[in-house]
Amino acid sequence: MRVGIIGIGQTKMGEHWSKSLRDLSTEAGAMALKSAGMTASDIDGLFIGNMSAGRFVGQEHLAALAADHAGMTPIPATRCEAACASGSLAFRKAYFAILSGHHKIVMVGGSEKMTDIGATGSVGTLMGAGDQEWESSIGLTFPGLYALMAQAYMERYGLQRDELSLVPVKNHAHGVKNPYAQFRFPISVQDVAASPLVADPLRLLDCSPITDGAAAIILATEDVAKHFEKPVWVAGSGQASDTLALHDREELCRLRASEKAAQMAYIQAGVGPENIDVAEVHDCFSIAEIIAYEDLGFAKRGKGKQMLLNKDTSMGGSMPVNTDGGLKVGHPVGATGIKQLIEITRQLRGEAPNQVKDAKIGLAHNVGGSGATALVHILRRD
Amino acid sequence: MRVGIIGIGQTKMGEHWSKSLRDLSTEAGAMALKSAGMTASDIDGLFIGNMSAGRFVGQEHLAALAADHAGMTPIPATRCEAACASGSLAFRKAYFAILSGHHKIVMVGGSEKMTDIGATGSVGTLMGAGDQEWESSIGLTFPGLYALMAQAYMERYGLQRDELSLVPVKNHAHGVKNPYAQFRFPISVQDVAASPLVADPLRLLDCSPITDGAAAIILATEDVAKHFEKPVWVAGSGQASDTLALHDREELCRLRASEKAAQMAYIQAGVGPENIDVAEVHDCFSIAEIIAYEDLGFAKRGKGKQMLLNKDTSMGGSMPVNTDGGLKVGHPVGATGIKQLIEITRQLRGEAPNQVKDAKIGLAHNVGGSGATALVHILRRD
Repeated sequence: MRVGIIGIGQTKMGEHWSKSLRDLSTEAGAMALKSAGMTASDIDGLFIGNMSAGRFVGQEHLAALAADHAGMTPIPATRCEAACASGSLAFRKAYFAILSGHHKIVMVGGSEKMTDIGATGSVGTLMGAGDQEWESSIGLTFPGLYALMAQAYMERYGLQRDELSLVPVKNHAHGVKNPYAQFRFPISVQDVAASPLVADPLRLLDCSPITDGAAAIILATEDVAKHFEKPVWVAGSGQASDTLALHDREELCRLRASEKAAQMAYIQAGVGPENIDVAEVHDCFSIAEIIAYEDLGFAKRGKGKQMLLNKDTSMGGSMPVNTDGGLKVGHPVGATGIKQLIEITRQLRGEAPNQVKDAKIGLAHNVGGSGATALVHILRRD
Repeated sequence: MRVGIIGIGQTKMGEHWSKSLRDLSTEAGAMALKSAGMTASDIDGLFIGNMSAGRFVGQEHLAALAADHAGMTPIPATRCEAACASGSLAFRKAYFAILSGHHKIVMVGGSEKMTDIGATGSVGTLMGAGDQEWESSIGLTFPGLYALMAQAYMERYGLQRDELSLVPVKNHAHGVKNPYAQFRFPISVQDVAASPLVADPLRLLDCSPITDGAAAIILATEDVAKHFEKPVWVAGSGQASDTLALHDREELCRLRASEKAAQMAYIQAGVGPENIDVAEVHDCFSIAEIIAYEDLGFAKRGKGKQMLLNKDTSMGGSMPVNTDGGLKVGHPVGATGIKQLIEITRQLRGEAPNQVKDAKIGLAHNVGGSGATALVHILRRD
């Protein structure tokens, strides 16, 4: 049985001082329902991806909160968490729920309200995605963890600092057309070089921002989805884990969980990296996108930067990546995985602001923490 | 296709000052593997129920943590959260994962390390299960929420204070034989009456404790499980949601989510309350067990106390409830739902310390917060 995406909705990403977590969740959910021409009573299950509302806003029990505020009780409401991969984790569990035969039409949302706690609070809370005993307790932050990966990669493969900057430059350029982006301005390699150093070699413009936002998708059985005009099908789903702490990895220049999740998704979908027309990858920091190219099989090991130098992954290239601007223009952590799947859905429907011509197969890649969780989904249209 | 339980393991519940969350999770998981005669490499997926490790110990990304510490990477690892119903929520999602065809043998664990943060910190953290904007922000605690339910119930149905005490008296009596219990001593109605008032009418001995602990179950496809000596089958699974805040409910003397979840589970299992031989119900506070009798259809509305007065739900009664002592003798919130399912599994295998003679069908009922989430599972043996 196939499972199809029949509705999508997302809030603007940014600093939402006048909206609460529940407001954002409900706004995204209502948009998804509207896009499917449905009402809440058509939905028989709710899945929510959220990383850390317990610390961000003092609230756990997120899925019940979302069901309650949207007037969707008494449907089953489930929260899934795997740090910044929480959104796609919820998506995969919702997909399983439909395949299990226990659900027919499910809403999958992701949400995060990160700004209420302030920047210092946010950075500390995000370290809940790393290893509390061995990383955060000694003062490591996420920019620090990815800086270690960047150092190792630059040393091993001779990546230059300005080549790394091509990632955020491309993604900011794509983000200009994204009406939901937190940042809609282009940047240059010089801008990156002039931005403050956060964790050597990563500078401010290498880092994804602290973002409030929510996104929602409606998933349905084939029997339901086939009656919609442009259903987008889940062709492959992969998920894998790795050590929580970076020091337990054999090497820092690849994410084993991404490789494994991609392999699972490709096998299920019966396609390879060469068949992907458009992709969203987890560019939480510039280095992450280059490593993702290689983990996903788009480029050979150590050759990821060539895709940037050739503009392969820019609009107009052979396989545009992060056509909405990626995490670089907004990263509401629990919502990010859903937002990525929405962009791929738009691409396959031919409705994206930066439309890739005739896109048929798309991939979304979502990472938790420094790679202890990764999920890859492959979507396709008929 | 049927899904069967083939392995169980749990830590002692209590104040584990010398063990971390990851130690407890791994201990329970190793016991479950041992009981199934398996090793970690036999498991193809991990699900973890945990309520609030982000606040209890500064750690999110719990499932990756558990997979990592147990040497189970790169298998997919998923954390589910619905406050105190997180354990059975993870169980249901693992059940769906197997039914979906994407998994064959899955470990489902629950864990919580509640004591590190101190009693005041714990009470505050637990309020993450309630409504942050409308309940915790005005000073309500969980004893307070259940005290409001107790007040309403006593007023409406004429329940006497000493009748309420029959719940913890029964559960402590059952807990004496439970080697994993945090408390293994009997108490009397007089002891309850003499214990400090926490939130009128609830006294200290009406309240479940703050507990560290973990529990794990191994679930498998019928093809795998049928080769085990005493497989226990998932016959029915139900889940429902309700308003997060108590003030949004039509009445306080019932949990609509419990009623709905029970209805789903009974229909799937093709049985009714009269067919249940043994049950674990969510007795976080004394009043909760009486309300559960009624929500689950064991007793008519307002008549729950009769089961206690008749000793129906005591060992030797017509349908013993909380034969391991229930939450009253240990409530490691994320692990509780798994611990309940383990007790029912032991009963159906004929291996419980307080064994119910010839138990064939058992029920486990797990509640999140003040009832915004409820799950009911019905297990049976061949």
